[in-house]
This record gives sequence, C-alpha cells and structure tokens, in this order.
Amino acid sequence: MLTVSEAQQRILSHFEPAVSHRRAAVARGTNGVELQTLSLDQTAGRVLAEDICATIDLPPFDNSSMDGFALHAADTRGSNSSNPVTLSVVADIPAGNLSNIVISPGQAARIMTGAPIPAGADAVVTVEVTDQSREPGAPAPEAVSVYQPVQPGENIRHRGDDIYAGSIVLARGRRLCAQDLGLLAMLGVSKLQVYRSPRLAIFSNGDELIPVEAPLIPGKIRDANSYTLSILAAQAGAEVIPLGIAADECAAIHKLLDLAVEAQADLIVSSAGVSVGAYDFVKQVVEEQGHLEFWKVNMRPGKPLAFGLYRGIPFFGLPGNPVSAFIGFEVFVRPALERLSGAAPLSFTRRRARLAEAIDSDGRESYLRAVVTEENGALLARLTGHQGSGNLLSLVQANALLIVPSGVKSLPASAEVEIWML
Amino acid sequence: MLTVSEAQQRILSHFEPAVSHRRAAVARGTNGVELQTLSLDQTAGRVLAEDICATIDLPPFDNSSMDGFALHAADTRGSNSSNPVTLSVVADIPAGNLSNIVISPGQAARIMTGAPIPAGADAVVTVEVTDQSREPGAPAPEAVSVYQPVQPGENIRHRGDDIYAGSIVLARGRRLCAQDLGLLAMLGVSKLQVYRSPRLAIFSNGDELIPVEAPLIPGKIRDANSYTLSILAAQAGAEVIPLGIAADECAAIHKLLDLAVEAQADLIVSSAGVSVGAYDFVKQVVEEQGHLEFWKVNMRPGKPLAFGLYRGIPFFGLPGNPVSAFIGFEVFVRPALERLSGAAPLSFTRRRARLAEAIDSDGRESYLRAVVTEENGALLARLTGHQGSGNLLSLVQANALLIVPSGVKSLPASAEVEIWML
Repeated sequence: MLTVSEAQQRILSHFEPAVSHRRAAVARGTNGVELQTLSLDQTAGRVLAEDICATIDLPPFDNSSMDGFALHAADTRGSNSSNPVTLSVVADIPAGNLSNIVISPGQAARIMTGAPIPAGADAVVTVEVTDQSREPGAPAPEAVSVYQPVQPGENIRHRGDDIYAGSIVLARGRRLCAQDLGLLAMLGVSKLQVYRSPRLAIFSNGDELIPVEAPLIPGKIRDANSYTLSILAAQAGAEVIPLGIAADECAAIHKLLDLAVEAQADLIVSSAGVSVGAYDFVKQVVEEQGHLEFWKVNMRPGKPLAFGLYRGIPFFGLPGNPVSAFIGFEVFVRPALERLSGAAPLSFTRRRARLAEAIDSDGRESYLRAVVTEENGALLARLTGHQGSGNLLSLVQANALLIVPSGVKSLPASAEVEIWML
Repeated sequence: MLTVSEAQQRILSHFEPAVSHRRAAVARGTNGVELQTLSLDQTAGRVLAEDICATIDLPPFDNSSMDGFALHAADTRGSNSSNPVTLSVVADIPAGNLSNIVISPGQAARIMTGAPIPAGADAVVTVEVTDQSREPGAPAPEAVSVYQPVQPGENIRHRGDDIYAGSIVLARGRRLCAQDLGLLAMLGVSKLQVYRSPRLAIFSNGDELIPVEAPLIPGKIRDANSYTLSILAAQAGAEVIPLGIAADECAAIHKLLDLAVEAQADLIVSSAGVSVGAYDFVKQVVEEQGHLEFWKVNMRPGKPLAFGLYRGIPFFGLPGNPVSAFIGFEVFVRPALERLSGAAPLSFTRRRARLAEAIDSDGRESYLRAVVTEENGALLARLTGHQGSGNLLSLVQANALLIVPSGVKSLPASAEVEIWML
C-alpha cells in the first residue's frame, strides 16, 4: 500500500511541476493557465501572475516626517531654550502642495507631515521645539523661534528611502493580502494580472445520503461532506462547482462526473464509494473513461482514498466518513489546489508540539484531532475525544491535527509531534 | 499619555461588555444587535447567535463501520482459516436501506459501511476475513464462511456514540468554519441565526492623497490606507462602507462623517488628520458633534491615534502613515470589531519567539515588522528592514509583528519577545 508521501508525489506528478515557485502550475489535460486582469480592489486573496516592478520611487519626493518648520540645519546650531534662534517664515507648505520657494539661510517654511521639502532646506524642526502653536487652522507666523539644534537630514524622508523605481516589490505567485494591496495602491497599480482560480467540482456518493433540509428517515444520514469540502476548497481559493449527491449506481455517478467535465472543472472531488463494498461503483466508473492510479493509502483515518484521471481531469475519491474526507482534503487535495493556483508554497503551516498525554496508534501514519495550547511558551497537544472517523464533533472541538508517523504504535506523554494548525 | 492597554480598555468600554463570551456585544448608541437567519450554505465565517442543540443522536442508528457481514459474534467463536464457520446469508443490506430482517444464530446479512445493523446481529465481520469477493456489483452469496472470531460490538458504531440528542454542540459566539457546517448539516440544521456583521465606514484624510488610478503629480501620494484597512476589516468579518478621501477642510470631513452615520455604520475609521499639524481638522470636527476620549497613545509607530464618539458612533482616527494605520487597526480596531461581532475571543493569536538579533527601541511600546521562522522547533524573529512608519514594503515582507514592551530600550539577541502572526 502506498505511504502518504508516495501518494502525494503520485498526485502532484499529474499537476505540471512548477519550474520555480513563481511559475504557475497547470494540470495536464485541463484548460491550462488562464490569466485575469482585475482592478486592484478585486484582488485580495488572489494569486499574482506577474512580478510587480515599482515604476516610481517611494516616497516619490523628499518630504517631512513631522509637523514643523523646514530650515537650514546650520542655522539652529547652538540654540537652546534660553537662547533660541529666530527665523523668518517665508512660506507655508501643507501636505499635497508643491512650493517653488527656495529657503535661504535665516529663513524657514512652516511644513506639515508628508509635505515636500522646499529647495534650500536640509532639515525639519518639529513644532514642539519652537514657540509656535499646535492649533488647527492657525495661520503661519511671520517668524519662528527654535529652541533646539537639528542635524542635516533630520525629520526628512528622502525620495526612494523605502522603494526605488525599478525594484521588484511583489513576485509572481504571491497570494495578495491587505498590506500588499496598500503597497500596490501607493505604486499606482490599479489593475493587475492574477491567475484564474482553480475550478473544483464536488459531489458525494451513497444511497444513504440525504440533503440537509430533508426529513431524516430510518437508515439515512445527512450529507456533511458537500458542506465541509466546499468550504475548505473555497477558502483555499477554488471556485466550487457543487454537484450534489450521486446514488450508488453507475449511471448516477457517470452523470455527475460528466457534468464536472462539461463545467470545465480542473479537478473533481467526490467522497465515499471508493471502498471494497459491493455498492462502491466509483472506481469502476472512473476506470471506464480514465484510470485510477491508486485507491488505498496507508493512513488513518482515510485508507480508502482513490486518485486518477476521468476524461483527463484529475479525480480524487475521498473516503465517505466526514473526518476521513476532511483529512483527505487537507493531505491530498489542498497541495494539488495550491500547485494549481500558481501560489508559492505556504511556509509555516506545520509546527512541533509536545504531547500532554500518552497516545496509542496502530502503526499507520495517523492524523488525530487535537487541541493545541501554549503553556509557558511551549505548545502542548491533547486529543479531543474519540477518534472514530465519523465523529465530526471531535474535529469541531480541535484546533489542530496531530500526526503520528508510520510505524509508531505508542508515544509517551511529552513526546514531540508534528501538528497542523487548522 | 495613555499606554496601549489603557487606550484599549477605554475603547472597549464603549462597546457593551459581553456578559460572557457567548453573549453578543453591542456598541452603545448604535443600531444594536440584529440577528439574521441564513441558510446553512451562507454561514461560513459568520458568528453563531444561538446555541445549537443536537435534536438527534449521531450516529442516528447502530450501523456498520465496515463492509462485511452482520452476525452473532458467538457463532464465530473458534473459527480460523482451516476451520471456518459457515453461515447462511439471509439478507443484503446496502447503506441507506432499512431491513426488517431478524438475524438468528447461524445466519448472517451482507452489510455495507454505514448500513443499519439488523435486529439480532451483534457484530460485523469484515469481508476480508470471509470467503467472499470484493467486486462491486457482486450479488449477495447464499452462504458465507468466516475465518476469524469477532467480539460482540465489533465493527459496529452505536447510535449516539458521537453525539446525544439534547447536547449542545456549538455555542453562541462561534465563528463558523468548514467542519462546523459539516456537523450542522449532519444534524439537519438547514437554517441558523447569526449576528449581523458589524458595519465599518472608512475614509482617508489629506490634500496630498489621490486615488490609485489618478496620475501622480508632484507633492501628491496615492491613498494606500483605504485598501489596506478595508481588506483587514472585511477579513475580520465587517461589512465595509468605503467613503473615499476627505480634503483637509472641516466641511469635507463633516460630510464623510455624516455619510457614515446615515449609512448606519457601527464604527467609523479614518486615517490621518489627527496629529498636531495646522491642517489636522479631524479632531475638531469630531468634537463639534461628539467628543474625543484621547488623541495620543504612547506607542511606536502610531502615537497620533484618536478615539471618540461622533453623533454617538465610535470613531477611530488612525495615523496617516500606512504602517501606523495598519498597526492601529490591529491593536485597537480589531478587538472592538471582534467584540461587536459577538464572536468569542480568539485564542492563540499571540506567541513567543526569540530574537535572532539585538534590537533597539525608544522606550515606547513598539510594534516592529518581523519575519518569524521555525528553527529546530523554536520560533526565531528577525526584523524586515527599516521600520519607518511609511515603509509599507517592510510590512509586506513581514509575517509577524514583534512587540517590544514599554520602558525597554534594547533587547539582546535571543531575548524572548511576544509576536503576533499576521
């Protein structure tokens, strides 16, 4: 039986490997990369498809970092509170206004934070070290007394201090966050190219499944996976194509798989129907118009896990139990989606923690539900109740998955383990 | 000057304190809590406004956890591969079907994963320990030989094993995630009550600001804060009311504040215009129809930070520099939004890390931009370039804020510090 990491590699080999993390990956046989040009306010959470090169310096001009007076630093030499230097104020420069004035020795210009430094001046004294008022609306004075010397360059932010025109500030493959959009706005990037979101078609299998709004009748259960998997996929940046529930018969499964292909899905995710039961037709149906690479992985929960191609589209057959389906998504579907999205690999999603209690395992690579807390600076992991693969409550109560490696049958309290924060 | 924590307390006192974390908080003088009833698929990321009590047991009936044969465990006693026990197969029970059959000693029913256990049977043997095939579509046999004994209860998931009817599974105040929706679906909760999202009005101040798509002219800069703050607010669950840019004059500021009130904002966030400059009119305008509680906080960056009420609506005047505005949002606006949202406080957003390098500070509580990595199981923090409050690039390059406490002027390499992951 394949190990988890063998299965992951087999899956990712069907998604064209990224030449570098800046290069978009494309699933073979799908619609390929498509780019979208969006206006800046539509791009939060999307993946950048171009390197962004600054076309201007930031700040774009020398400007004051304080409210005060622009002057010649040399004029303030030796000044103090009992012996101030008095300068004539020849201009008033609010932010947003360009002044053509040239400040000569003995002169000053009142200046606001962010306003351009006038020619001649080489420093700014803050209003707090002068005799001037802080009242909004106060007119500029005719003269200002300065109580403290200032060094050349003080309180000036120089053009290009933060960014030079020509430098690359955001690389292709970046998933755009709030501060990125702020930076792009400052640089005047009002439209940008992002990768099309991957399209993920999703359905559940099983005669026992009924939709959430249907009355519960004996022998039936409600379909949880359509909800859980759709939201995980949407949060991972996919556009979800929800296809509902297929009955346990070949024609019904065929129909939904074909709908996924017609909707130009980049990948298809179903749950249940891939085990060894007499009514598990999904494997057979996929193989009629494609092939399966594997249908078992040596892990717990989630052993019955199929992967293959249906009419050229990557197909994931997750287990039916809700917790197994969730973990199958995290372990196998999310990495494929990430590669397909064009995004650079996320760092920092896996951590180490210490066990708060001894745990047993069965030798398979196991993904257990746990609560991780920080105690005295260390991470401590505790299981959240019974780990049956149908017990969604213990997943709801968890904030992490705790990974027990293959071959390990027990771990003592305080052993170090890998965790994935949810 | 107020400390950060004094300022936070002053702010939160204007948002009705939550009696418990399950109780919604409401800003005084605003529209109060309003509830929305949404269908399940609309609720991801929303805050639950009711306790959810299971109305059914989960699983709802005893069912098989494996594909195999339901039987009397006692019948299998002593069986092994050379001496199997043979039982007559009297029924075939696929998942989703209820059988009225009663299994007598000496009998078995073929049963699929998830199918109800028939009366009489007290265990399931998996198909792997019988003489039967795993072919999908294979008809049920007339008899089955079992090669291994099974214990009573084996491979049976009992009704109520995961959840009892009557137990509270999700508490008011929970921000709903993927697995929560799966659980709600299983329980048949197709509609639920969530809190209305807080409405946050946002604008920027300054004659120097131009929108992103405008050509850059000398003395002007583009407005970054409208983008950064809107996205932070939306990601924190707020409905954003974007109001654009106000010029540095009282009438323009009044107009946008009044628009925010008319749009029924629960809180108003502006940036810039709250410092000591001669053109900083925001404080004055707010005080004409409200009052300011404070306009300075002893922190870096972000000292000029105003909070008050305008026509009864909480008003945050963040600093104008993009990094200061970002940090002001994280430190002051986000906690208010969280309280207003009705959500239980988030755990686990603050961590401890060790400094990779010595750093200097100026004695104010400081929020520095850093990259945190995990090395040999420990978190290590490094600053991302110069920490000027206008330098958004070093924020874009950061994955964390690093907090230097008040009163500290230097920290040696490997000192432990608090970090907030971004």
